[in-house]
This record gives sequence, C-alpha cells and structure tokens, in this order.
Amino acid sequence: MGFENEKNSSILSKLATNEEHGENSPYFDGWKAYDNDPFHPLKNPNGVIQMGLAENQLCFDLIEEWIKRNPNASICTTEGIKSFRAIANFQDYHGLPEFRSAIAKFMEKTRGGRVTFDPERVVMAGGATGANETIIFCLADTGDAFLVPSPYYPAFNRDLRWRTGVQLIPIPCDSSNNFQITTKAVREAYENAQKSNIKVKGLILTNPSNPLGTTLDRDTLKNLLTFTNQHNIHLVCDEIYAATVFNTPQFVSIAEILDDETSHCNKDLVHIVYSLSKDMGLPGFRVGIVYSFNDAVVNCARKMSSFGLVSTQTQYLLAEMLSDERFVSNFLTESSKRLAKRHKHFTNGLEEVGIKCLRSNAGLFCWMDLRPLLKESTFDSEMSLWRVIINDVKLNVSPGSSFDCQEPGFFRVCFANMDDETVDIALARIRSFVGVKKSGDESTPILMEKKQQWKKNNLRLSFSKRMYDESVNLSPLSSPIPHSPLVRART
Amino acid sequence: MGFENEKNSSILSKLATNEEHGENSPYFDGWKAYDNDPFHPLKNPNGVIQMGLAENQLCFDLIEEWIKRNPNASICTTEGIKSFRAIANFQDYHGLPEFRSAIAKFMEKTRGGRVTFDPERVVMAGGATGANETIIFCLADTGDAFLVPSPYYPAFNRDLRWRTGVQLIPIPCDSSNNFQITTKAVREAYENAQKSNIKVKGLILTNPSNPLGTTLDRDTLKNLLTFTNQHNIHLVCDEIYAATVFNTPQFVSIAEILDDETSHCNKDLVHIVYSLSKDMGLPGFRVGIVYSFNDAVVNCARKMSSFGLVSTQTQYLLAEMLSDERFVSNFLTESSKRLAKRHKHFTNGLEEVGIKCLRSNAGLFCWMDLRPLLKESTFDSEMSLWRVIINDVKLNVSPGSSFDCQEPGFFRVCFANMDDETVDIALARIRSFVGVKKSGDESTPILMEKKQQWKKNNLRLSFSKRMYDESVNLSPLSSPIPHSPLVRART
Repeated sequence: MGFENEKNSSILSKLATNEEHGENSPYFDGWKAYDNDPFHPLKNPNGVIQMGLAENQLCFDLIEEWIKRNPNASICTTEGIKSFRAIANFQDYHGLPEFRSAIAKFMEKTRGGRVTFDPERVVMAGGATGANETIIFCLADTGDAFLVPSPYYPAFNRDLRWRTGVQLIPIPCDSSNNFQITTKAVREAYENAQKSNIKVKGLILTNPSNPLGTTLDRDTLKNLLTFTNQHNIHLVCDEIYAATVFNTPQFVSIAEILDDETSHCNKDLVHIVYSLSKDMGLPGFRVGIVYSFNDAVVNCARKMSSFGLVSTQTQYLLAEMLSDERFVSNFLTESSKRLAKRHKHFTNGLEEVGIKCLRSNAGLFCWMDLRPLLKESTFDSEMSLWRVIINDVKLNVSPGSSFDCQEPGFFRVCFANMDDETVDIALARIRSFVGVKKSGDESTPILMEKKQQWKKNNLRLSFSKRMYDESVNLSPLSSPIPHSPLVRART
Repeated sequence: MGFENEKNSSILSKLATNEEHGENSPYFDGWKAYDNDPFHPLKNPNGVIQMGLAENQLCFDLIEEWIKRNPNASICTTEGIKSFRAIANFQDYHGLPEFRSAIAKFMEKTRGGRVTFDPERVVMAGGATGANETIIFCLADTGDAFLVPSPYYPAFNRDLRWRTGVQLIPIPCDSSNNFQITTKAVREAYENAQKSNIKVKGLILTNPSNPLGTTLDRDTLKNLLTFTNQHNIHLVCDEIYAATVFNTPQFVSIAEILDDETSHCNKDLVHIVYSLSKDMGLPGFRVGIVYSFNDAVVNCARKMSSFGLVSTQTQYLLAEMLSDERFVSNFLTESSKRLAKRHKHFTNGLEEVGIKCLRSNAGLFCWMDLRPLLKESTFDSEMSLWRVIINDVKLNVSPGSSFDCQEPGFFRVCFANMDDETVDIALARIRSFVGVKKSGDESTPILMEKKQQWKKNNLRLSFSKRMYDESVNLSPLSSPIPHSPLVRART
C-alpha cells in the first residue's frame, strides 16, 4: 500500500494523493457504520438508525400529489412527451428561462415575500456542493482564506477548500452565549489572520446554521455586513435551510438587509448560495444556486455552470412545480408545521431523559448537549461516547468535533429523515441508554447518577456485551475500488 | 469599464478576471450570431442556420417511442411515482447501481461488444465538460501540461485548463497526411516541452475526433499507448463520439488495445472520458463519465463527483432505458444508418459544387476544405471568409483557427442537428455562394473561377449589399448581466 501510494504520488495530482478531501472524519465514518448495519423496522430492527443525515422527508406526499395532478410537467409522460426533444437537447448554461424565474420566485417565497430576486442573477450549479465551490473559485485564489464561524458543516472542507486551494479559518463560537457569532470574535479571527500574512477574502455564514439550527438576527447580519464591507471582503451567505424555519424568530435573509442598507453598502461583495435539497427535500435532483449581487461574479459563475448544470429533465419539472404559487405556499406552510411538530416531539423526548438541546428554530437537526455524559471534558471522551452511541445505542449521530466545534460534548442529531415510528424507536434507545427510572406516572431522569456510576465503574451503562472502546466496524466492501464513507454529496 | 475591471481584479479571483475561460473565440461568436438571427423555415427563412452545434437530433423518435412504451421508467408518471421519494432523496455519489451497470453495458455495446466495462469504475460527472475537468484535477497540478493533437475541440481550453491551471500543448496535424497523428509529431511536442522545463503529464486523444470526424486505427492507438507508457505519462481518451461511427473502419476503443496489451502495459496510466450527449443525443441530461483503469483515480474522481452528480431523476430513466438491450441495439444500428445517410447526402451536395471534406467515418460534422476560397493562405483570410459565411451566406460554421488548426482554410460544419429540409436549404445557400453554373442535367462547379474573380475584384461573390469585412453583429442583450456566447456547455 505504501508502494502504491508512492507510485501514485509520482503520477497523479496532489489532490488525488494528499487526502485533503475532508472525508477522514467521524462524521462520515458514522455513515459507514450505518451503511454496514442499517436499521429496518422488520428486516433489521436492531440496526443503526441514521440520524447523521440532514434530509427532509416530511413532505414527499405533497410533491407526489402535485406530480400526479400535473403529468404535463414531465417530459416522460404522454402529456409531456411533445417537449422531450427540445428539453433533452437544451444545454444553454443560463438554464431554462422558466426554471430561473421559478427559482427566483421560490427564493422570494421562502423569504416571506419581503425581498425580490432577479432571475438574471440565478446561476445553476451541481447542488449546494457545486454552488459553494463555484463561488469560492470566483472570489479567491489558492492560499487565500475565508472566515467561517464554527461549528460548521464538515463537508465545507471539501466543498470550499479541496480543489480551490483556499483556507478556512474558524471563528470559534461556544455555549457561553449559545454559540452566537459576535463581531468581536470575527474581528479577532480576521486580525490574527492578518498577523500571519494570510489574505482573508471573505466571511462565510450558514444561515440558518448547520449544525446549530439557529438563525441570525437582523442586528448580527447588519454588523457582519458592515464589518465585511469595511474591510472590503466578501460576505457569502449559505441560505440552503431558509425554508426549514419552523418557529419564531422568522428567517432574515442577507438580501433583506441589503435592501435596508442600499445607500451605504457595496453590494458587489455579497453573495447567496441556495439549493432545493433541504427546503424541498430533493437532494437527488442536484439543484444548487449561486445568487450574486456582483455582475462579474454572475458572469464568471455562469461560465462555471458548465461543470455542473442541472439536468434539463429536472429543470423542466421544477420550473412547472415552483411556478404553481398555490402549491408552493401550501408546501412551505405545511413543511414548516410538520418540522415544528417533529422537532417538538423529539426534543420533548430528549428533555424527558434530561438531555438538553440548543434552543433552535430551524434546520433538520438538534444540537444535543451531552456534556454531562463525558468522562472528561475532552475530545477523546467525546469520541469514546460517540463510539458507544454508534456501536451500542445504534444511533448514527455526529460528534461536534467533526463540525470543528471547539467545546467537547455536543452532537448533531437529525430528526427529519425518518418516520414517526423510527423517531420513537430512537428515543426509546436513548431513554434506555441514559437510564430512566419510572415511578408511577412520572419519569425521573437519572442521567447524572448514571454518569457518576459509569465513571466509577468504567462501564458502558447498560451495555455489557461489547468492548467500551470498540472501534466502529468498518469492513471493506467487495468492490475493487475502496468505497468512500462520504457517500452523500451534501448533508 | 476599465475602472470596473480594476475594482473587480482587486476583490475577485484571477479566474474571474483573467479571461482565460476560452470563450473569446469565433467558435462562440458564431453561436451568438445565430442566436441573434436564428433560421426558422416559416418565421425567419433568411436567418442564420446553426451548423456550429454538434448535436445529434436524428433519433429522438426512437427514444420518445421507448418512453411512451415505458411509463414505469419515469418517477413522474402514475406508474413510476411510487419510486419518487426514494429516488429524489438518493444522493450517494457512487450513483444508482442500476445506472452504473446500464452505462457500463452501453459502453460495451457502443464498442461492438468487443470489450467489457466494470460498473465499479464508472464515475459520474456533469457532462463531458465536467468529466474532462475531473480527470485533469486527478492527474495534474497547476502548471503541468497535456499534449493535445490539433485541431481540437475549442472548449478544451475551458474544460481542461481554466480551473485546473494546466497547460495544453498542441501536437500540430495537417492536411499533408490527412491530419493523422504521428508518433514523430507527438515525440517532438513532448521533447520541446521537456526542453522548456514543462512537466508533461499526459496525452489527450479525442477518438473519434472532433472536429475531424475520423477514428484512430489500432496501430496508431498501440503506438501512442506505448509512447505514453514508456514516458510514464497518462493517456486520456475522450471517446464521447464512439457511437457516431457510421462507416468503416469500425471504432477501436483504447479499452480494446489494453485488452491486447495487458502483459506489458501500465493500465494505471489509461483513462476514458465518456458521455451520452453525442451518442444518445441527450446533452441536456448532463451525463458525463470518467472511466479509469487506475483505482486511485476512480476513488478521487468519485469524491469529485459530488460537484457534478447526474440528477437521480435522469439516472433512473436512463438506467431503465439503457438496460433494454433490444432498444439499445436497435437504436445504435438505426442511429449509425441515419448518420451515414445524412453524411452522404450532405457531402455529396458539397462535392457537387466542388467543396471537398476530409474523408471521415464518424462524428456529427465534416471538416470542410475551403482553402480554394481563401484570398491568401492566412488566418486573416480565413476569418474574412468566415464573416462572409456567417453574415451573408447565413450559415454558422466554425473556422479551423478556433480548433487551433495550424493550417488556414478548414471549417467544421455540423450536419446532424437539423432536419432534411434545413440541410437542403443550407446546401442551396452554399451552392448559391460558390456559384454553380447549371447546364442541362449537369452541375459544373465553378468554384475555382469564382475564386479568381473574387480575388481580382475584391468582391464578395454574389453578395453585394453588405460590407465584405462587416463584423458579426453582436448586439448586447437586454439582461443586466452580459450574456456569454458560450451558451452551450459542450458541443
């Protein structure tokens, strides 16, 4: 293998041999553990439940209903086949005009109709993954840096960094202020980079936040816009979870702030990344959008579109679907309601056993505080606990360290990629794990006592058959090519 | 505008400001001329006929028939909707297993069943555009170089070079040996690069050739494989026109040569780029494939798939369609027949007026020899002639210079992206242009005499109302963002 690597490093690119793709993370190892032993209510009821995947599966019935009612929206139906040849042949990298208009309208709706988007600025990319890479290719050169509040989405290390050669500089956020981004922390990160002679080209915000599930308020957005403008650096807002907001405060898009601040703001420095993977739950369709307020960036990103155009079959379908205003309004309202319900049910279940989550109003996940379960406040302990949760509790959750969280003991747990029954099985497993003592009608969490006992005995709570530090079982698959754990393009 | 550029160059990347995207070419200007005044038999009978677009529109009826017979193959029909949620949600970057198997089988069929392809090595990318970039990212670093026989596909300058930062070094081929690639020319290009301290990482072959429409014979392929192996550099074979071969000699894939040479060949240096845009005529669907014999490249390219996955809606449809062996066999036979017929009709029409094309057996275009029409044997004359053809003859053909052809006077003219009637109108325009003197039943080409007259009088043959050197009319569109002429992702 050493020889193989040496041989390849002489003939392949650095990208192919330097392992900088960001997939060497427990975030992805957890998926592999799930893939090796996936839960199924009947076929594999003791399998791993996938809670590491930020998918939105709660509203497929609405989309399916719409499709059944609109056979003309597909080029592969008797009603739609007449458009087949024109659409299958269409490869203009501007995209179908109807598609761009529909996307712009959808972006308006998901931002409460408080702001308008220009279809001429809607640029296609291969999912948010492709959109994120595209915007970086447009803004920065190899070696340049972007500031990113941490914890942040693990695959940013691939999407923003891998092929572009830029650096990501974390702006550490922690539990002391509920992981809020302060201008002070941003300034410090910026100044430290300056001192190290690193050229900072911008700030990346994920709003709503993945993994926190929180939204940025108007004042924070204004302050960060002012900061980036003052330093003549870019502000890139990843708003792919815009329509997952299920509770107050409502979502505020950077586009709204720009509308307020037009007179004294350089719009050329502001860019939005969008996608339909989360808000519509259509990750397979690979719809990524770069929306820039800078003409030159729109122009350059459009040229880069060629590397990741959306299939015209898919553009055509979505153009029809998202132009149906009644459908979209109903979908957004219903999706928000269902997410709120699921979130409440899940977090209530956790609270019953004494597990707290960061208070959130958006996203497809909770930021679960398991600090009381750590043996020590270290990342080693976090990893040990994570292995127990994967191997014994059989839940694939994602440890905070994989999000570059600077404080051990937090885990992202996804709740919208499963049905009600599976959520309840997951909650039952957690309940059993932390040990609930039932007395009459009341549930008394004994999380803290359990933890003490666990520490004293160095035992795995109620799990005794397996080794405590047993590694995740990552058996090689039969393919001649090693399968990668990062099987999903984006989560 | 100067100020705008200066402002942007300080805040944007070099990619966004250095104009290295390769779109500043008459190849793309011609498309713009077409877009401004597109031919339509009824609405705009004097408009520009698009002969700059290598599209395969001859067999849509077969695909449409199949789709009508197989409603279950679409997730947007009553018959297929049950698969909607699973497919819309699927984002594994390996792709649907059925899709990869179907692609591997299709690649076998298009290579006459003489070689097998392993689905585990089929890696998705965003069209051939994305596949070409992906393979370069895997093989080479910024500053490295690839040898490319010229004339070559103009957008290689974008696809292979723009974001990867590699160089392309042309291996000049010319009419003296019918544009064949000789090992001598390859060796010279390689040695010259060595002398200039340029690190050559490989050789790119487009087989069948775009723009020549010719295929490489077995001996040439063997020699080039030996050459690249001996120098420990890569051989990348772009075989996206594999199924457009319509005449003998039959197509030989590099995969067949590898089968012959297994004992003394390093397969790790060999890679194939494939696509369904030409062979199936589905450029809108953005199916690009990297097929590498090197495990590390498969592994790395797969990770890069995330930036340009094929929509699962499209994967699902094509998995079903390409698994239908009877359909595929019939499609390939019929497509080849129709291309042969069209090619014969078109080249006969040209021959009647004394225009010769390079003898070809594949592709969706001819390599038309208009050297007799040049005022002088220079590229300036080629451009002058091209402007006449665009502006007055109203045909968008592509000048050889845009393919980096080293010899002036050749033009690529596409013949498969239109119906029979449009081909005949194009031929009539050409006939009128070169001036055919009819006498009884015989057509006597007077191309040569016309040319002499044209040179003497400095006149544009039979076109007198417009300026001879009139520029292509490229009026700006109404969008706030300048539209790019490279509207197609790949041709």
